[in-house]
Amino acid sequence: MKQLKLEHGGNLYEACKKYDLERKELLDFSANINPLGIPEVLKEQIINSLDQLMDYPDPNCCELRENISKYVGVPTFSIIAGNGASEIIFLLFRVLGLKHVTIPAPCFSEYAKAAEYWDAEVDYFEMQEADNFNLDIEELKHYLKPNTQCVFICNPNNPTSCIISKEDLIDLLDFCKKTNRYLIIDEAFIELTLGQQYNSMVTLIKDYSNLFIIRAFTKILAIPGLRLGYGIGEESVIGRMWQQKLTWSVNTFACNVGNSLEYLTEYFEKTRIWLANESEWIYNELCQLGCFKVFKPNTNFVLLKILNNKSKNSCTSMELTAFELIELMAKKGILIRNASNFKYLGDSFVRVAIKDRANNVRLIQAFKAVMGSD
Amino acid sequence: MKQLKLEHGGNLYEACKKYDLERKELLDFSANINPLGIPEVLKEQIINSLDQLMDYPDPNCCELRENISKYVGVPTFSIIAGNGASEIIFLLFRVLGLKHVTIPAPCFSEYAKAAEYWDAEVDYFEMQEADNFNLDIEELKHYLKPNTQCVFICNPNNPTSCIISKEDLIDLLDFCKKTNRYLIIDEAFIELTLGQQYNSMVTLIKDYSNLFIIRAFTKILAIPGLRLGYGIGEESVIGRMWQQKLTWSVNTFACNVGNSLEYLTEYFEKTRIWLANESEWIYNELCQLGCFKVFKPNTNFVLLKILNNKSKNSCTSMELTAFELIELMAKKGILIRNASNFKYLGDSFVRVAIKDRANNVRLIQAFKAVMGSD
Repeated sequence: MKQLKLEHGGNLYEACKKYDLERKELLDFSANINPLGIPEVLKEQIINSLDQLMDYPDPNCCELRENISKYVGVPTFSIIAGNGASEIIFLLFRVLGLKHVTIPAPCFSEYAKAAEYWDAEVDYFEMQEADNFNLDIEELKHYLKPNTQCVFICNPNNPTSCIISKEDLIDLLDFCKKTNRYLIIDEAFIELTLGQQYNSMVTLIKDYSNLFIIRAFTKILAIPGLRLGYGIGEESVIGRMWQQKLTWSVNTFACNVGNSLEYLTEYFEKTRIWLANESEWIYNELCQLGCFKVFKPNTNFVLLKILNNKSKNSCTSMELTAFELIELMAKKGILIRNASNFKYLGDSFVRVAIKDRANNVRLIQAFKAVMGSD
Repeated sequence: MKQLKLEHGGNLYEACKKYDLERKELLDFSANINPLGIPEVLKEQIINSLDQLMDYPDPNCCELRENISKYVGVPTFSIIAGNGASEIIFLLFRVLGLKHVTIPAPCFSEYAKAAEYWDAEVDYFEMQEADNFNLDIEELKHYLKPNTQCVFICNPNNPTSCIISKEDLIDLLDFCKKTNRYLIIDEAFIELTLGQQYNSMVTLIKDYSNLFIIRAFTKILAIPGLRLGYGIGEESVIGRMWQQKLTWSVNTFACNVGNSLEYLTEYFEKTRIWLANESEWIYNELCQLGCFKVFKPNTNFVLLKILNNKSKNSCTSMELTAFELIELMAKKGILIRNASNFKYLGDSFVRVAIKDRANNVRLIQAFKAVMGSD
C-alpha cells in the first residue's frame, strides 16, 4: 500500500487521524483557500442542479469554456478544462512530449510528480534564500541546458509567495521563444495577488505560441473539493489536450461553476479588500513575533523560517524543527504546512495561509503560546 | 479542435444543440441510468456537505474505501477509487504495462481508447450475431495469441446486454491463470442484472491474483455527473494504482457517496422489482413491433437491429439506417443510441435504455409512429 503521508497541504483526513481530532476542531492554515469561502451563488447552483447529475457531464465542457472565455478574455479554442490544475499539468507532459524540463525551486511539487510519471528529466534551478527566493531571470537563462524543452514557473510561487514582474516574465518568454522552448506559467494564485489581472500573462497567449498558462478556481472560489482547473494555450496544443484527456473528468457541478462567474463581481471585490488588509497585517504580526524569518507575502500565504536559539533575534529558548512546531500547533487545533519537503527548503520552514482576521489572530496567539513569546 | 461528436450515449449537450432542443424537451434513452434516479439520501448528503468543498478531498479516499469494502465484501487494500470507471481502465494499462490485449467485441469503447493511448495492440475477438452476440469461451481461449497479456470482458456486456455465466467466467479465469494472463471484468452494470451479486466475480479476488474487476456507481445510483468508479484487485496492483493516480481525482461529493450505501437497501430492492418487471415488458413490446431484431436484455438496456423492408417481418415500408432512425426519434424528443460505431455492428444497430413504465410506453409509441406500425 502507498504510504499515507501529509505530502500536500490540506490533507485534513490524515491530519485529523494523526492528531486524533474532529474536523471541526482543526483550523486549517495548511491549504491556501480564499477565507471568504464558497460564493453563495455557487452553493445555490449546486442545490438547484442536483438532478443534472443523472446526465453525463458534457465531455467537451462547451458552456464552461464559453464562460471561462468571457472571464479571462481568450477564445474558447484556447481553453482546456480539467480535474484541477493537476490534470492540466499531467496532460501537458503527454501532449508536448516533455522529456527535459527546468523547474526553479522551491516550488509546487506536482510538476516534478508529472515529470516522474512521464520519465522526464528535471533540472532544478535553485532560487536563493539570500535573495528571499526571488527568481533571477538572467541566471536562469544561463542555466538552461541545450536540451531543455520548457520552463515551469509558478507565479506567484508556492511556497515562497514571491511574484515575478510582468516585464521579467515577458523577457523570459521572449528568450524561450527565441530558443524554441515552452514557458509554462502556473497562475493558480493569480487572482489572490494585489494587481490580479495585471499580473497575469493571459493576454499574451495570442502572441506567443510557446506560452501556456495553468489556472484553477480552487483557491479563489474556495472549492478544492470540486476539482476544477483549466489551461490556456495555443489552439493546436489545446486541441491535442482535448483528444488525450480522460473522458468526463470534469464533473457536472464543476462544469457549472462557469455559470456563476458573471455574478461574482462583489465577491472578487471583497477578496481584494480582505487581501490588501490582511497580508499587510499578518506580515507585521509575524515579524513582531521575532521567532521567524518572514518572507514577504505576495499572495494569500506566507513562508516562514524558524529562528533557532542560536539566532540573535530568536524568541524561543529551544531549537524547534518544522515538524516539532507543527506538532505543537496541532495540539492547539491549528494545522500549518510543513514546508521542509519542498526542494531546497530545510527542516525549519513552514507555510501558513492568510485567513480572516479572527482566525489570523488565533494563529498569532498560538504561535506566541507555543514559541514562548507571550 | 477536436471534432465534437456523439461518440458515447448521454452526450446531451451536443444532442440538444444538434436537434435544437432544450434539455427538458429530450427524453434520454441513450444512456443506461437507473430510472429510479438519484437516491434522496445522496441528495441530502450533498446539500449537507457543501461547506466541505472548502477542504481538499482525501487523496487516498480512506473512508470511501472503507464503505466500499463493507458494500462489496473485500478488504480496503483491494480497492482503488477513481474518476469514473474510465480512470480505472486508464490506470490499469499503465500499472500492468499492457501492450497486447484481447477484447471480445462489440464492446464498450473505453478499453480500446485506453489501449490506443498507451500504444497497446488490440486483438478483437468477434462475437457473432448468429449467436446473439453471446461469448463463446472455448473459441476465445483458442483465439488468444501467445503474447496476449490480458482479456477485457464487460459483464453484462455493453451494448449487447449479454451476460456470461459465472461458471464460464471461472473457466476462463482458470485458463488465464494457467497461461499467465490477466482477466479484467467490467461489472459497471452488475447491480442492474437479475441475480445481481451472484453474477459478480468480486468474491474470487482473494483467490486469483490475475483477476481485476472494474465497477462504478454511475449506473446503479444514477450519478454519471458525479464521477465515481472503483476497481478491485490484488493488493500490489492496487497499491501501484494509488501511486500512479491523478491526485484528488475523486471529488468530495463522490468520496461521500460511500456514506450513503448502508441506507440504500430499499432503493436496491425497488431497483430489482423495476428491472424484473420492465425488462420483460419492454422486450415483449419491442418484439411485437416487428421492426427490429430484439436481442434479449440481461440488464437495463436493449440492443436492436432494424429490419429493413427486404426482411419478411419488417413493419416499415422504407429502408432505415440507425442514423436515420435516430434523427426521426429525436424529432419526437427521444434520444436513442446509435450503436453502429461499436466494432462489428453495422449501420442498422441502435441501443435503448430501459426506463420506467411511463417513459418506456413513450418510447414504444414513438417507434410505432416513426416506423409506421401504428
